[in-house]
Amino acid sequence: MIRHSDQDRVFMREALRLAAKGSGWTSPNPMVGAVVVRDGSIIGKGYHEKVGGPHAEVNALREAGSDARGATLYVTLEPCNHHGRTPPCTEAVLNAGISRVVVGMDDPNPRVAGGGTGRLRSQGLEVVSHVLEKECRALNQAFIKHATTGMPYITLKAAATLDGRIATHSGDSRWISNERSRRFVHHLRCVLDGILVGIETTLKDDPQLTARLSGRPPCRQPIRMILDTHLRIPLESKLVQTACEVPVWVFCGEKASREKEALLLAAGVEVLRLPVKEEHIDLAAMTEMIGKRQVSSLLVEGGARVLGAFLEAGLADNFHFFYAPKILGDPEGVPMILGRGRDKMSEALPAYDIRTRRFGEDVMLSGRFHEHLY
Amino acid sequence: MIRHSDQDRVFMREALRLAAKGSGWTSPNPMVGAVVVRDGSIIGKGYHEKVGGPHAEVNALREAGSDARGATLYVTLEPCNHHGRTPPCTEAVLNAGISRVVVGMDDPNPRVAGGGTGRLRSQGLEVVSHVLEKECRALNQAFIKHATTGMPYITLKAAATLDGRIATHSGDSRWISNERSRRFVHHLRCVLDGILVGIETTLKDDPQLTARLSGRPPCRQPIRMILDTHLRIPLESKLVQTACEVPVWVFCGEKASREKEALLLAAGVEVLRLPVKEEHIDLAAMTEMIGKRQVSSLLVEGGARVLGAFLEAGLADNFHFFYAPKILGDPEGVPMILGRGRDKMSEALPAYDIRTRRFGEDVMLSGRFHEHLY
Repeated sequence: MIRHSDQDRVFMREALRLAAKGSGWTSPNPMVGAVVVRDGSIIGKGYHEKVGGPHAEVNALREAGSDARGATLYVTLEPCNHHGRTPPCTEAVLNAGISRVVVGMDDPNPRVAGGGTGRLRSQGLEVVSHVLEKECRALNQAFIKHATTGMPYITLKAAATLDGRIATHSGDSRWISNERSRRFVHHLRCVLDGILVGIETTLKDDPQLTARLSGRPPCRQPIRMILDTHLRIPLESKLVQTACEVPVWVFCGEKASREKEALLLAAGVEVLRLPVKEEHIDLAAMTEMIGKRQVSSLLVEGGARVLGAFLEAGLADNFHFFYAPKILGDPEGVPMILGRGRDKMSEALPAYDIRTRRFGEDVMLSGRFHEHLY
Repeated sequence: MIRHSDQDRVFMREALRLAAKGSGWTSPNPMVGAVVVRDGSIIGKGYHEKVGGPHAEVNALREAGSDARGATLYVTLEPCNHHGRTPPCTEAVLNAGISRVVVGMDDPNPRVAGGGTGRLRSQGLEVVSHVLEKECRALNQAFIKHATTGMPYITLKAAATLDGRIATHSGDSRWISNERSRRFVHHLRCVLDGILVGIETTLKDDPQLTARLSGRPPCRQPIRMILDTHLRIPLESKLVQTACEVPVWVFCGEKASREKEALLLAAGVEVLRLPVKEEHIDLAAMTEMIGKRQVSSLLVEGGARVLGAFLEAGLADNFHFFYAPKILGDPEGVPMILGRGRDKMSEALPAYDIRTRRFGEDVMLSGRFHEHLY
């Protein structure tokens, strides 16, 4: 295993910090950060601020100006070597006279991976790769999954009492988590591309599913998606009423009412038909469709049956579960996840890389459903 | 509010650290620590090591010897002023020539509170009280509750999946939590006076309920208690079979079989009869009985109905809930707590002072069911 120098890791960490500033604005592009360093001092910083805007390297090189000649460029992701929305970054690096390039991770797209670093090496630059690679990959899990599989990265979210209930037997769930937790959920909605709930949740709560962050700069809104096999969504629901402001996609079965579809289309809702298996929409087909529509990350907010269906289908990537400081105790309370019956505890689905975070007296546990990062 | 000096708090913290070393050995006495300080240096340390043994002050003064003359004594609990198992500590303090005494908390027993510090003040010593009082009280919650109410301090414990299940629909629960979590439970059993489970858990798991800490010095065993209205506990169960080695108390209703009682008594089990309300043993009466028998702390380990019954009766003080990194998803899985039905989430029972602790990938959430410390 290659050991990288402390100095390289320090500057890469700064590039990572910058990259994260693009959170919520770069999709379907990755978050990327870059710094230009000369004689141990940072002379240029940049990050990919917004899809369609300049790449991180270009921003950092621009700030460094002519001092970049002979300097080292740190960048969290391999510079691109192809014409996309912008010219290839490798040309910008070469033109600036950079002599050494330190890269966090290769381009995840196997068709172009190594192309950028290869081009730079062939022009005589020193290239060091895979510095803080794990951190660089962790930052862009949604981008990497989408780039390599075409499927969106799927995050499950639930808010429960300490005894694992998300509602009383009568369905009441307001409120379980506190305001700080709910603010974090709005932050998640803001940085992920899409948000999905089942029709039962829609009928019960009439949610808006927008990202609302008071006192913060305005954020991008996620696409709002409803799993609604029989097109039961009410025309007077908040979602349908606001469909012209923030997109709403309703996924339904092939046999759902054409009449209702026409009414929804007229209200600005996009209706997407999918195959139905055992009375439920085929979630794998749905996830594929979402990925093809350039949604690289999806937050699934419930209810329990929808979370269970994603889990049982092996489609969920990670989770954020909030536990609020209260006990419901209701024997008929709604559990967090409704999946399939299991006889043995050893058949339970494993989770990995558990992290805890406090929001006041609420505790959020997060983790992944697969052992390794994409 | 009185502000105490940094120095006083530093030495009181050391006394607290010493006090905690008695954990598991002092009940029904409190844990107490003491240090003797002269010219800013600790010249004597002590703690109450074991019920029946010398008090903390005596141990610390003994270590300080004749240097204690004119020194300051820090002690987490007001020195006693009465003859109990040992002579009054106030006399030891006076005889040693201590000139200043810093006390963490008053004696919780209202009949003697202030007696110790009053006696010392009357003899011309400077006495400072309530230094790190909250920490001193937190250390001895079981002792304080028992001393002031006669009831034991009741801790609920459960180990669940992330979705709040403690067993599959078929009752399988081995294993949910990992070895590090289970080791901590054995530590709890070791430091608390008693441990209680319901008869259903006993029938299903045939548990030993002993404290087993491999590679550690032998610890005191908790009294093992079973809630068993109809005396269904099998004579061949591990509990009954080992009743002569570690005490077993079985709580049953007034009408339970006299014949079975005789067989259990012959096996060394103590059978305790209690009033029955709506087919269940009156938990308040049981808790009172346990307190009268000098058990100041009780760990209730399940099942879900027993935890629910303690909670609904308002008898539970705090909890340690373990969440293991797995999802059961089983719609008929056993929930953590089975209490009474609740229509509204706002009727959920609140918890306070939530803390998190990691045991590998397991997360333990702990807290209290009452807002304030005893």
